[in-house]
Amino acid sequence: MKIVLDGMGGDNAPQAVISGAVEALKEFKDIILYITGAEDKITEELSKYDYDKDRIKVINTTEVIGTNEHPVMALRRKKDSSLAVALNLVKNKECDAIISAGSTGAFLAGCTLIVGRIKGIDRPALGPIMPGKNGPFMVIDSGANVDCKPEYLVQFGKMGKVYCETILKQPNPKVGLINIGAEEEKGDELTKAAYKLLKESEPNFSGNVEPRDVTLGDVPVLVCDGFVGNTVLKMYEGVASTLFSVIGNEIKSTKRGLLGGLLLKPSFGNIKKKFNYKEYGGAPFLGVDGICVKAHGSSDAKAFKSAIRQTYIIKQNDTIEKIKKEIEEFQG
Amino acid sequence: MKIVLDGMGGDNAPQAVISGAVEALKEFKDIILYITGAEDKITEELSKYDYDKDRIKVINTTEVIGTNEHPVMALRRKKDSSLAVALNLVKNKECDAIISAGSTGAFLAGCTLIVGRIKGIDRPALGPIMPGKNGPFMVIDSGANVDCKPEYLVQFGKMGKVYCETILKQPNPKVGLINIGAEEEKGDELTKAAYKLLKESEPNFSGNVEPRDVTLGDVPVLVCDGFVGNTVLKMYEGVASTLFSVIGNEIKSTKRGLLGGLLLKPSFGNIKKKFNYKEYGGAPFLGVDGICVKAHGSSDAKAFKSAIRQTYIIKQNDTIEKIKKEIEEFQG
Repeated sequence: MKIVLDGMGGDNAPQAVISGAVEALKEFKDIILYITGAEDKITEELSKYDYDKDRIKVINTTEVIGTNEHPVMALRRKKDSSLAVALNLVKNKECDAIISAGSTGAFLAGCTLIVGRIKGIDRPALGPIMPGKNGPFMVIDSGANVDCKPEYLVQFGKMGKVYCETILKQPNPKVGLINIGAEEEKGDELTKAAYKLLKESEPNFSGNVEPRDVTLGDVPVLVCDGFVGNTVLKMYEGVASTLFSVIGNEIKSTKRGLLGGLLLKPSFGNIKKKFNYKEYGGAPFLGVDGICVKAHGSSDAKAFKSAIRQTYIIKQNDTIEKIKKEIEEFQG
Repeated sequence: MKIVLDGMGGDNAPQAVISGAVEALKEFKDIILYITGAEDKITEELSKYDYDKDRIKVINTTEVIGTNEHPVMALRRKKDSSLAVALNLVKNKECDAIISAGSTGAFLAGCTLIVGRIKGIDRPALGPIMPGKNGPFMVIDSGANVDCKPEYLVQFGKMGKVYCETILKQPNPKVGLINIGAEEEKGDELTKAAYKLLKESEPNFSGNVEPRDVTLGDVPVLVCDGFVGNTVLKMYEGVASTLFSVIGNEIKSTKRGLLGGLLLKPSFGNIKKKFNYKEYGGAPFLGVDGICVKAHGSSDAKAFKSAIRQTYIIKQNDTIEKIKKEIEEFQG
């Protein structure tokens, strides 16, 4: 299996990309990694490691797309960017998959413009898997598409379901609609219309899920507009960070607290591990006719390795083919 | 000052309403409370307490509006409901304010249809005050209005600013727009258009606030569509509940954890107190030409007392008059 890594994407590129790549080679014996980017920098970084030189190929590119550039314009202008060159390797079937921690917008635009969409999918979507109280869950779309139409949400549900089945090994997962009320008639125009469509066309649809219940993880596939999904994910991150910080300050404020905190150090360690997104790797753009995995912009080596592991599992499970089949059957 | 309480609204009515009312009489010597609802039940409940009989007036009503009824239809049909009668007392200036923990939809509809809107306000909005890491903040609108137009968000900002100044005593508070990116061009159609309007017309506008940063409390007035605001509030509630539950389970899983947990009991108590919405009372429907305070549906006696305290403060500070002035000046 051949995976191309955008060597210049993300806050810690290329160091973290390369360190994660070298680690992944040890775990997965049948992968070959391509890395696009400034050859001199990448080669210099690689020289720090001992690895099988036949399994990492560096492809020199001269341009980089920044996170603040207009996605489509940047892609069109920077043909020799690390991202565009990597995407073309997937398009031309030279590589089976791409991973990038760079600009989400440019990556998404490139997936659609260069690699192409699956027939029957209007908008590829991001569906990261998150840790929940009773189990993992995915929020799809979590930020790739705003101002969605109701039918997009049905497509998100179909793709999420297949992804959840193949990656989380949860047979027949429930599909829920994130909404600000439990009853069918609650919500805004989008969720009311999406509710009706999902009820008609998704056998696994289990109704509305209020944001209060999202993190329980009782409904593994949660569909919504990307603005809402992004809000859900970022609130999860923000509230957790605020609470841990408040707990930390409270603990430090008394001697009794300090002793209690010391005793609970392993417990907090377990919780932080359980709720660490880095363990879950990246999130694929589902709906693209290829394996395109978005890694978090702040990914470190461990996160890149996890993203490679996840990409590997997506490929091993024929996930994209299964999504295509599901969408084909849905469209009849 | 005369405040009317919807005696039948909320999960714990009328017991919690009455218990909270009796407690409030002790704290605020210059208030008179009206309670609408089934006179026999209310009188029976009141007979359990020792209080100044001249300061609580019971007004018998024969109907109750349920939370699952169509708001406008229910209000029109049930003229003798505890809510409609209470709203009319405010409309006719017999009372200065109303508090209800009943159906949000019916209460909002009644505020608009019976009490009336402030000139220049298209949609009254809910703006509850929440505890944040560095200070309290309000999210307006937090669920009264979905599918908002950009100009509503500007009005929310003006009202929230005045409310924050008068209630939280924060002079010149920053007004932020909840959005899924920090940059001006980020977001969906609504937030992009609202950004432009806010930039032009709100001197306190400080730009986008990502959901990750909402709970920091660095920006005290946060405007958004009601679907987003409700998602933010319910995620806050849900994530906090999930985390505390996970921490609790982790603590209980080892002897060391149990001991640490015991030592940290006062610390967790402080945190729970700090993050307890009951301390903050209800949330007013801002934009109504009167003081209309929505208490949480699950309010207990303490929450009702807090809502009465907040209503009192709103009145003492001429909040509604100040909002009117702000909107008048804005419209020129």
